[in-house]
Amino acid sequence: MLVKKIGIVGIGLIGGSLGLAIKKYKLAKRVIGICRHRNTLQEALRRKAVDIATTDLNLLSDVDLVILATPVGVIKEIASLVSKTIRRNCIVTDVGSSKKEIVLKLEKLFCNYVGSHPLTGSHNIGVKFADPTIFKNSLCILTPTKNTSREVLFKIKELWEAVGARVDFLSPALHDKIIAFTSHLPHLVAFSLIDSLPVKYLKYSAGGLKDTTRLALSSPQLWRDIFISNHKETLGSLKQFKERISFLEWLISKRDAEGLYIFLKKIQRKRSKIL
Amino acid sequence: MLVKKIGIVGIGLIGGSLGLAIKKYKLAKRVIGICRHRNTLQEALRRKAVDIATTDLNLLSDVDLVILATPVGVIKEIASLVSKTIRRNCIVTDVGSSKKEIVLKLEKLFCNYVGSHPLTGSHNIGVKFADPTIFKNSLCILTPTKNTSREVLFKIKELWEAVGARVDFLSPALHDKIIAFTSHLPHLVAFSLIDSLPVKYLKYSAGGLKDTTRLALSSPQLWRDIFISNHKETLGSLKQFKERISFLEWLISKRDAEGLYIFLKKIQRKRSKIL
Repeated sequence: MLVKKIGIVGIGLIGGSLGLAIKKYKLAKRVIGICRHRNTLQEALRRKAVDIATTDLNLLSDVDLVILATPVGVIKEIASLVSKTIRRNCIVTDVGSSKKEIVLKLEKLFCNYVGSHPLTGSHNIGVKFADPTIFKNSLCILTPTKNTSREVLFKIKELWEAVGARVDFLSPALHDKIIAFTSHLPHLVAFSLIDSLPVKYLKYSAGGLKDTTRLALSSPQLWRDIFISNHKETLGSLKQFKERISFLEWLISKRDAEGLYIFLKKIQRKRSKIL
Repeated sequence: MLVKKIGIVGIGLIGGSLGLAIKKYKLAKRVIGICRHRNTLQEALRRKAVDIATTDLNLLSDVDLVILATPVGVIKEIASLVSKTIRRNCIVTDVGSSKKEIVLKLEKLFCNYVGSHPLTGSHNIGVKFADPTIFKNSLCILTPTKNTSREVLFKIKELWEAVGARVDFLSPALHDKIIAFTSHLPHLVAFSLIDSLPVKYLKYSAGGLKDTTRLALSSPQLWRDIFISNHKETLGSLKQFKERISFLEWLISKRDAEGLYIFLKKIQRKRSKIL
């Protein structure tokens, strides 16, 4: 057992999956789930993702560890409320997809905090898609700062490893820069690809288009908040992307067969490095 | 049975899968496979994708139907050679992903020709990945022109339906315009997305990036040829894409939460129309 009592605030896909995994691997004696929506609370109980499901933040008063798993857009606001009810020595993490802005704020609120970003999930959201195995073989990035104690870092690392994830460490700023490229940019591109397709052409789509644009099925609320929270790095990665697509455009416009072949071959090799 | 003897020129993923499907559904008494590479011929025989495997185009002299399934870049050249050996009344189709340029040339070479484009396949190429079921529930576009006889169109439609595909008809020009958006642009975007990612960031990629860039694993030869063959429409679709991505960029740079939400919600709905 990792700790006695764990609180999960926000019981969506990630929060719900964590609840299921924590119970499956017996990482806590009791899991308290907090959520604003009654339907979600019922579903979380039905799925046995939490032991207690409530809208009342006061039930966090004696937990040992809190995981903030709400959408990025409300993490800071919820954290303020949570900070007023938990014990001073309670360990806190969040699972937000952008980190710099969130870590800056949450470090002020909590003395035992470190940010997490599990690189898993799906365009399917909500506790009904929760699955205790989604962390298996996935990567979870922790974003310690000079304020992070070794004990907190170790405990949160232990939590993620216990649910099956590999753990890596990045500064909040570097996390946001990297994830802009590997996650926020692909979402932006998928949304724009669908945006540019004439509706009447949709029926002529095959597997390739579907895969390339699956991310455009992602939650508009969630992604509005992530794009805004990490706007600087997201726009930076987009700038780079636009430059590179212009180079490919130039090769095609010149009908440079040899140049195109060498270029595409190089990219194919690079892509094959992603396991 | 559709015809007595079918010739398949080019025994890759599509040619090989067609061979397997033709034999599975007994659409011809005999399937002659033509290919330049000895290894492929052996593998095609081993997989029983063809009855006879040869490099000798003269074996097409008495076939009733020829399917040109080579990469786009060599279809026109191979077609010239094929036209010198087949019977005058032999029915011909090709499976190229771009059509205008190919149809224009092949109509001059063959009097019983119509272009096909089965919207199926994979980044995995070669007869070793051949599968008789890949046409099931897929769409196959035929591109008849004023020169196409009803008999030829009907026979080729019958062929595709017999292997499990739904058939739709488009002019070669409209085909190229639509497929630029639904296939060539997604490939271009996937290649450029990988191109723009710093190599050292690759290890921080999750499922979203993988799906969005799966097409960057596609064959460089094949896609060099398709981009060049359909360069005009591909560049046209890219122009549209760049305009749309600039709009999303603008929304993010303004941090326009409401505008972003409405915009992403609209795109999510549009994407969900792709079945």
